[in-house]
Amino acid sequence: MKPERCFRFPFSIFHFQLYTMHSFSALSAIFETGFNTRHFPGHTATLYDPAQYILQLGGKRVRPVAVLMGNELFDEIHPDAYHVATAIELFHNFTLIHDDIMDKAPVRRGLPTVHTKFGNSTALLAGDVMFVKCYEYLNKLKVTSFHKILQLFNTTAAQVCEGQQLDMDFEKTDTVSFDEYVNMITLKTSVLLAASLQLGAILGGTGEGNQQHIYEFGKNLGIAFQVQDDYLDAFGDPATFGKQVGGDIIANKKTFLMIHALEVADATSKEALQQLMIENPADKVEKVLQVFRDCNVNGWANELKEKYLQTALQHLEDIAVVSKRKEPLKELALYLIQRNR
Amino acid sequence: MKPERCFRFPFSIFHFQLYTMHSFSALSAIFETGFNTRHFPGHTATLYDPAQYILQLGGKRVRPVAVLMGNELFDEIHPDAYHVATAIELFHNFTLIHDDIMDKAPVRRGLPTVHTKFGNSTALLAGDVMFVKCYEYLNKLKVTSFHKILQLFNTTAAQVCEGQQLDMDFEKTDTVSFDEYVNMITLKTSVLLAASLQLGAILGGTGEGNQQHIYEFGKNLGIAFQVQDDYLDAFGDPATFGKQVGGDIIANKKTFLMIHALEVADATSKEALQQLMIENPADKVEKVLQVFRDCNVNGWANELKEKYLQTALQHLEDIAVVSKRKEPLKELALYLIQRNR
Repeated sequence: MKPERCFRFPFSIFHFQLYTMHSFSALSAIFETGFNTRHFPGHTATLYDPAQYILQLGGKRVRPVAVLMGNELFDEIHPDAYHVATAIELFHNFTLIHDDIMDKAPVRRGLPTVHTKFGNSTALLAGDVMFVKCYEYLNKLKVTSFHKILQLFNTTAAQVCEGQQLDMDFEKTDTVSFDEYVNMITLKTSVLLAASLQLGAILGGTGEGNQQHIYEFGKNLGIAFQVQDDYLDAFGDPATFGKQVGGDIIANKKTFLMIHALEVADATSKEALQQLMIENPADKVEKVLQVFRDCNVNGWANELKEKYLQTALQHLEDIAVVSKRKEPLKELALYLIQRNR
Repeated sequence: MKPERCFRFPFSIFHFQLYTMHSFSALSAIFETGFNTRHFPGHTATLYDPAQYILQLGGKRVRPVAVLMGNELFDEIHPDAYHVATAIELFHNFTLIHDDIMDKAPVRRGLPTVHTKFGNSTALLAGDVMFVKCYEYLNKLKVTSFHKILQLFNTTAAQVCEGQQLDMDFEKTDTVSFDEYVNMITLKTSVLLAASLQLGAILGGTGEGNQQHIYEFGKNLGIAFQVQDDYLDAFGDPATFGKQVGGDIIANKKTFLMIHALEVADATSKEALQQLMIENPADKVEKVLQVFRDCNVNGWANELKEKYLQTALQHLEDIAVVSKRKEPLKELALYLIQRNR
């Protein structure tokens, strides 16, 4: 899993001019080549084959590539960045295995989830052992910033667990405020993207200020992405969305849209929404969407997404590095946010 | 969580004479004092309270104390040993939470298991976040042997997962050989005791040879303990055993005793055992025990336990340290093995 090598001029002043930054897709291809291997021993196959199984389902590998991009923003890619990127992707897949058990999800990326194929107990254990494997990759690091990297990884891992717990808690709660929802989403999904970028930045040797900016870039981008995801679930094009449009509405999920609608709707519309959630009529999606439109939830969601995107881009702007180096990250942001628009 | 301090003579030749070794129970009390605290933040309480809950159920704390004893065999207790001991006890409790989910166990130490009290999903997550916490404690270490410690911890954690998977696999298998069972037990329970002792030894600064001997001491002691546990489940005194005598027989568990009985019984007795397991008659325990006695499984089990105990003690003997320092570990071995005899 070697980075592409390029000529490095011995004087750093020229170095930044000669070094060619990689695009997201180029780094994604490099990462995939190295990652596309068996990460587990042959024995005990009944445990390790299920763990390996989910890794072959693919995915965009956004988080590990974010490690490499966060790293390359400040320097040539450090060999240890590939270990961190691998740990991050394994961690993400560990959470997918366990989340799918909790959510009783039958399918992921068009194929049976691990627990559907191998049973709940084996899926639970396969997740556990994948989590161990993260730390095996992290333990390969030779950098002096090892403790700092491990600390950020641990903090983030705990936050992701907290986010998942809050998400489950919200299912049993009548009302969830906007701030509570943003907090949950931040923990459940955004901090991992933020931390991936920061981990790369730490390996790139940059200071605390830049690290915080790249973290905030990732965090706000992650929230913007979730606003978009919630929006597309309601208003997306069924041909390109990839999931069932209206799925969140059918499942009575508290989303950015539903929470806002319940906050701004007049008494009649609010009552209507609540009745629709209780009664689940056949035309529920259509009727909920009508309330959303009446309250301009769609316009509000687009503005909200734009707000978080702009905050993210401002943090990217504030990183003390020449602008040219930031282009791949800017492209990443626009790629994540503008798809399926 | 400070070790008891004692006067340390500046010349190491006198040091070993002046330093007072602690007994298992003394170290257990010291560890418990430090461990008896909240290990998790207040937020998110719905996640962290369940994690904290299992820690308050108590236990003998054998594994963390083994860290301290493995450490004190070679030197005064290193402050970092308390972090490793805490990580080991948290890891053990993480496995208990997840194993209880898999085994659908309703009760542990006389109280509801985590998933019984808080639901499967929260228990799963509470286990996950407790596992993260292990690495937070390990990340406090300042020693140069940090990578080696993390490596042993990771390897052991993966082995424990493998052992649990094999245990589940065996439930679906008709025949399990003696060697397969020893391998499963070694992975599921013994390596954690072995690794605990070795982790302490690494912190004590001893060489690879001594580390291997203390590891093998723990591993063989762990197997001897499991032989005893299987024996007591069948032949123990109901007044002192703590669990239901005959529980393994009722559940058709493949134990040292059952596996050996099926290997040595004549055709008629083997047929009888297999029929008993299929038919589950009211007097099943009594009848299985009679076959065990007819095959002298009880005598064989005692010899087997003794064999593993002696192997363990030989490895203790082979550690290049003055005999006097080994006494607490010898006491631990006899305490673990001879209880309820």
